[in-house]
Amino acid sequence: MTARLFLSAVLGAALALAAAADEGMFTFDNPPARQLQQAYGFTPDKEWLDHVRLASVRFNDGGSGSFVSPDGLMISNHHVGLGCIQNLSSAEKDYVSIGYLAPARDQEPPCPGYEVNVLMSTEDVTPRVLGAVRDDMSDKAAHEARKAEIARIETGCSRKTGMRCDVVTLYQGGVYHLYTYKKYTDVRLVFAPEQQIAFFGGDPDNFTFPRHDLDIAIFRAYENGQPAKSPAFLPFARESVKDGELVFVSGNPGSTSRQETMAQLETARDVFVPQVLDYVKRRLAVLRAYSKASPEAERRARAQIFGLENSQKALEGRLEALQDLKAMARQAAREKELRDRIAADPALSASVGEAFDAVAAAEKKGAARALESRYVGFSGSRLLNIAGTISRHVVETKKPNEVRLEEYVDSNLASLENLLYSQAPIYDDLEITTLTHQLELAQELLGPDHPYVKAVLAGHPPAAVARRAVSGTKLKDVEARRALVKGGEAAVKASSDSMIALARTIDPFAREVRRFKEDEVEAATNRAHERIGKARFAAYGTSVPPDATFTLRLSYGTVKPYPYAGTVQAARTTFHGLYDRAMSWGNKYPWQLPARYLERKSKVDLDTALNFVHTADIIGGNSGSPTINRAGEFVGIIFDGNIESLAWDYFFTDDEGRAVSVDAQGILEALDEVYDADAVVKELTDARPPAAAASR
Amino acid sequence: MTARLFLSAVLGAALALAAAADEGMFTFDNPPARQLQQAYGFTPDKEWLDHVRLASVRFNDGGSGSFVSPDGLMISNHHVGLGCIQNLSSAEKDYVSIGYLAPARDQEPPCPGYEVNVLMSTEDVTPRVLGAVRDDMSDKAAHEARKAEIARIETGCSRKTGMRCDVVTLYQGGVYHLYTYKKYTDVRLVFAPEQQIAFFGGDPDNFTFPRHDLDIAIFRAYENGQPAKSPAFLPFARESVKDGELVFVSGNPGSTSRQETMAQLETARDVFVPQVLDYVKRRLAVLRAYSKASPEAERRARAQIFGLENSQKALEGRLEALQDLKAMARQAAREKELRDRIAADPALSASVGEAFDAVAAAEKKGAARALESRYVGFSGSRLLNIAGTISRHVVETKKPNEVRLEEYVDSNLASLENLLYSQAPIYDDLEITTLTHQLELAQELLGPDHPYVKAVLAGHPPAAVARRAVSGTKLKDVEARRALVKGGEAAVKASSDSMIALARTIDPFAREVRRFKEDEVEAATNRAHERIGKARFAAYGTSVPPDATFTLRLSYGTVKPYPYAGTVQAARTTFHGLYDRAMSWGNKYPWQLPARYLERKSKVDLDTALNFVHTADIIGGNSGSPTINRAGEFVGIIFDGNIESLAWDYFFTDDEGRAVSVDAQGILEALDEVYDADAVVKELTDARPPAAAASR
Repeated sequence: MTARLFLSAVLGAALALAAAADEGMFTFDNPPARQLQQAYGFTPDKEWLDHVRLASVRFNDGGSGSFVSPDGLMISNHHVGLGCIQNLSSAEKDYVSIGYLAPARDQEPPCPGYEVNVLMSTEDVTPRVLGAVRDDMSDKAAHEARKAEIARIETGCSRKTGMRCDVVTLYQGGVYHLYTYKKYTDVRLVFAPEQQIAFFGGDPDNFTFPRHDLDIAIFRAYENGQPAKSPAFLPFARESVKDGELVFVSGNPGSTSRQETMAQLETARDVFVPQVLDYVKRRLAVLRAYSKASPEAERRARAQIFGLENSQKALEGRLEALQDLKAMARQAAREKELRDRIAADPALSASVGEAFDAVAAAEKKGAARALESRYVGFSGSRLLNIAGTISRHVVETKKPNEVRLEEYVDSNLASLENLLYSQAPIYDDLEITTLTHQLELAQELLGPDHPYVKAVLAGHPPAAVARRAVSGTKLKDVEARRALVKGGEAAVKASSDSMIALARTIDPFAREVRRFKEDEVEAATNRAHERIGKARFAAYGTSVPPDATFTLRLSYGTVKPYPYAGTVQAARTTFHGLYDRAMSWGNKYPWQLPARYLERKSKVDLDTALNFVHTADIIGGNSGSPTINRAGEFVGIIFDGNIESLAWDYFFTDDEGRAVSVDAQGILEALDEVYDADAVVKELTDARPPAAAASR
Repeated sequence: MTARLFLSAVLGAALALAAAADEGMFTFDNPPARQLQQAYGFTPDKEWLDHVRLASVRFNDGGSGSFVSPDGLMISNHHVGLGCIQNLSSAEKDYVSIGYLAPARDQEPPCPGYEVNVLMSTEDVTPRVLGAVRDDMSDKAAHEARKAEIARIETGCSRKTGMRCDVVTLYQGGVYHLYTYKKYTDVRLVFAPEQQIAFFGGDPDNFTFPRHDLDIAIFRAYENGQPAKSPAFLPFARESVKDGELVFVSGNPGSTSRQETMAQLETARDVFVPQVLDYVKRRLAVLRAYSKASPEAERRARAQIFGLENSQKALEGRLEALQDLKAMARQAAREKELRDRIAADPALSASVGEAFDAVAAAEKKGAARALESRYVGFSGSRLLNIAGTISRHVVETKKPNEVRLEEYVDSNLASLENLLYSQAPIYDDLEITTLTHQLELAQELLGPDHPYVKAVLAGHPPAAVARRAVSGTKLKDVEARRALVKGGEAAVKASSDSMIALARTIDPFAREVRRFKEDEVEAATNRAHERIGKARFAAYGTSVPPDATFTLRLSYGTVKPYPYAGTVQAARTTFHGLYDRAMSWGNKYPWQLPARYLERKSKVDLDTALNFVHTADIIGGNSGSPTINRAGEFVGIIFDGNIESLAWDYFFTDDEGRAVSVDAQGILEALDEVYDADAVVKELTDARPPAAAASR
């Protein structure tokens, strides 16, 4: 499950009834203490919560992770680290294929563009944000006032603390919290297994269980060129979890849509999800054709294909959930219950007004221009994306902070630049292929007479436009990017760089579509959601956690078998299962074992647990989240959910849905017996549990 | 999959269009030569067919098997041999639990009541059977004339050859063949593994794949107290099958309903299957409660529970198939196509007449008395069944052969007596429990005022009636049974045996219900089916094989993975998979390994294939059928089909449906490394392939 594919924020109305068993991604300032006490006789105290929070890290390109030693050692998923592993590789040394183990602590190579965050504090800033909005403002004016106030809060905090400061919108705009993060931008790679074992079973086994993946990568955070002292860390547990055991997940779920109105779910089902799915399938076909040219082409396209295959399966799962008549009827009943309550209360009725209709109207408006939102812009090519970012950077940063496009406000700028100046390699042929395809799709889906298409193609075939733009650009060179940004608006305007020229043509169209979406769709939706959200609070209180927002959450569940294809699926797999699946397929891709797994087989204790499932509530973005026991120890790492869990975007149920973790003991067994990663094993097993946690 | 549960004959109309890929259970006189040549470039010649036919055996209580050495060694499923293993066991030595290996060839113990048949020849007797029926006869008269002619043919053959002779109704009465069988009634047990490994995964894993069962039992046929010389045998192959490999199954599929009319499928869906399912669930609840009393009670009820659990899952699968709207629409389209063809042809139209309506009317009539057919009779207790058989035996055998109830005609009598005089142990407490439940169900479902219920209970509670009947009978003693049969009608009439008395009360009611069913329902259905069948032949020819009739058939398919729970299921499992599943469940029942599997683990080559799947067309009754390669070698043994294959009762599709076999190499590995069954392994591997087959 690659998290980054799920992170486009979806706004939704707050109308959940009482949460289902084990449902909920809770903020650390509102942990599910009562539920845990009732169901498990366990109450996490402040010390426990602080320990887990400070040991949890967010990988800024869309994943989670945790500190697992006092010396900045961090563990996440291989698929969260894939960009780094890919970027450190070359045609000669492909660490994605052969795996990587740093020869020594002082030879750990940096991951270009990586940033991890640790959540240090949160503060309620709802009065400040909502105070900036007056009732008599238009939707657009309210939206801008809110945005400006948020930018002021973030910048003020950032200046004062020197830390990363984000105002997080919770409860669909009912609550705003200021999150302060300690930031690590020097992240280095310590260990990565072969992708073949990290993603054993490939696309077929993705989003399924039983599973046999060592989907881990180990990093180290550095400060001032030295291994960082971890703010906290999770010691590895000494044994595997048992059926029925309580486990926690601490991570950064990207987004959920559990509180959307029916109008939104129906538009997602009928318009948005099918449109994205169509894009994903067509892009995949193009990349697969590109890959066939040579092993090197296959290597270059691999990360994109990997992400898109993952995306396709996830979208199909979500579409299936939305097409599940029973589940949708249940959601409709929830909405009706809320609306009946509102209708029965004159005060609520007056405050909500026509908010449900307003959401529906905005959805309809947005759906009508959904294809433009998707195809007008800088997507489809990394170089175009860089050129677009530069073109806007020089304009936006000259504006007052409050009126900039969100990604250019001061508090977001460092992260944006970190990506903009990434040394990650770019391949011309691949760029031409994907940019051509993007332009072809625009031509086909928007029509040849769409002003954007006419302006961008100017009568030429998409392939010619793409080839010219890619061959005439210097933007592969990071220094060229820096020079343009430094040169400012004048330099960009004067630039004869072909990709910058293309971005200049695109920008006004892209800004118009974005303005339409933000001002005419999202502003109205947000305003309506605020009203519905307040009514929901009046009706149901705050016992239900907010929808996911790619910020730190704690969820909990039990290790638990589930009904499966006519039988019952055990809650774990062992190394025996790995060898069974490889041998049952004749050791053929994608069930082929890396050679060392065959060589070392007799050394491995095959009864050791490799993967396990549990009912903790997760979603994309939780990739790499630690799975933690009562004692605050690391028992595993989230890397996927089964197919049934894909419905969790919209509705949680633990009938069959399960989160999937790599087992900590399986990790140690592999590091020790298959990889001879003695130093890493020593660092992990030497890490002493904090006294407080150990005493539980 | 226990076959005996599927053997009630269901008559169906012949209206299949062209068969699906690999569909078909072919008679050996009409093998699918063209299809095999087209799809696989292989044509089985007469020698190959004779070799396979003569090596195939039918276990008369509902399973299949094969000779695997020249000295009468036969292999079938553990669940086909379960009755024998159970009967050889005692509270002290429970071979079902601990497994059994005969200490030496001269110490192989006989299986009480077992009979196996080898098909020696077939002959078309259609003209004789149909010649006995005149067009102007009523349905009932036609039915009786047909039955009488069949009995005459069978008896004549039996007298002449000394063999077992059965007239088999094919193509819904369009064709009649006389099958002559060599009969072995001295069957002895050579080897049986622990039920825990034969049925590893128990009821949850039943009808599923991946699977890890050593579902085999090895027997030897004896003649004149000496090991029989096998008429032919299948040598064990030297290696496992590969993906895409062509395999054959030779066995005795019990019954299929692929050519039933929609009216019949709908009645099955709405009336018959739900009624049986209700019975099975309720009887299971009673037996499970009984089992809880003690380990000995659990042992006594085990075989019945095992059969009923199996039945429940099978019935649920069949009900699901019947409730599959798409599949049913496909069947309806097939029927419509046939009916349109008939309507377009005046001659066909005239000959078919109102046959479809007649089937529908008969179904309706039968459905109205379905509960009586189920609850009025000798079922529900073995002692009652024995008493009923004796009561009828003495009456029926005095009648001319042609007018007897079918199971008492001369050619069936030996098999019936083989079961009647079986030494299999009977337990009073279990008998009282099941008979009580049977009477309670009759009381509840037929109503307390039903004449049958009033006569049988005579105002007493069911438990009292059952207790009195069981405690006052001598029929547990086989000699007492023989004495009554010998004493004839007078002895039975005069008998004061309590169970005989109960049977005497039941008999007239049971005969009336049976007469109704045979004369008023089946006779009309059969007559109509004959007409439809002839029209179907006119339309589609004989390329489609007849519905299954628990007679020898050849089917074929390929070893093939299939889509499964979001991924692709490999076509086989290995011993690694067995250990994975056991360990992932903490080695707990029903995934607990017998102790010797833990002790011997390091000796076993864990990469060896254990079970595999393929697309050969099978159904209940195929249990124990050999799976055979082109060379005529034994590559495995059928023991189950996956859940998706349960629909094959009504419609074949290999999209996901698969037959499941134990792999021959897995059998050898276990016999050799786990059981030290050296003599058996030597006999199996010494068995030389016939020269002809070896040359392929």
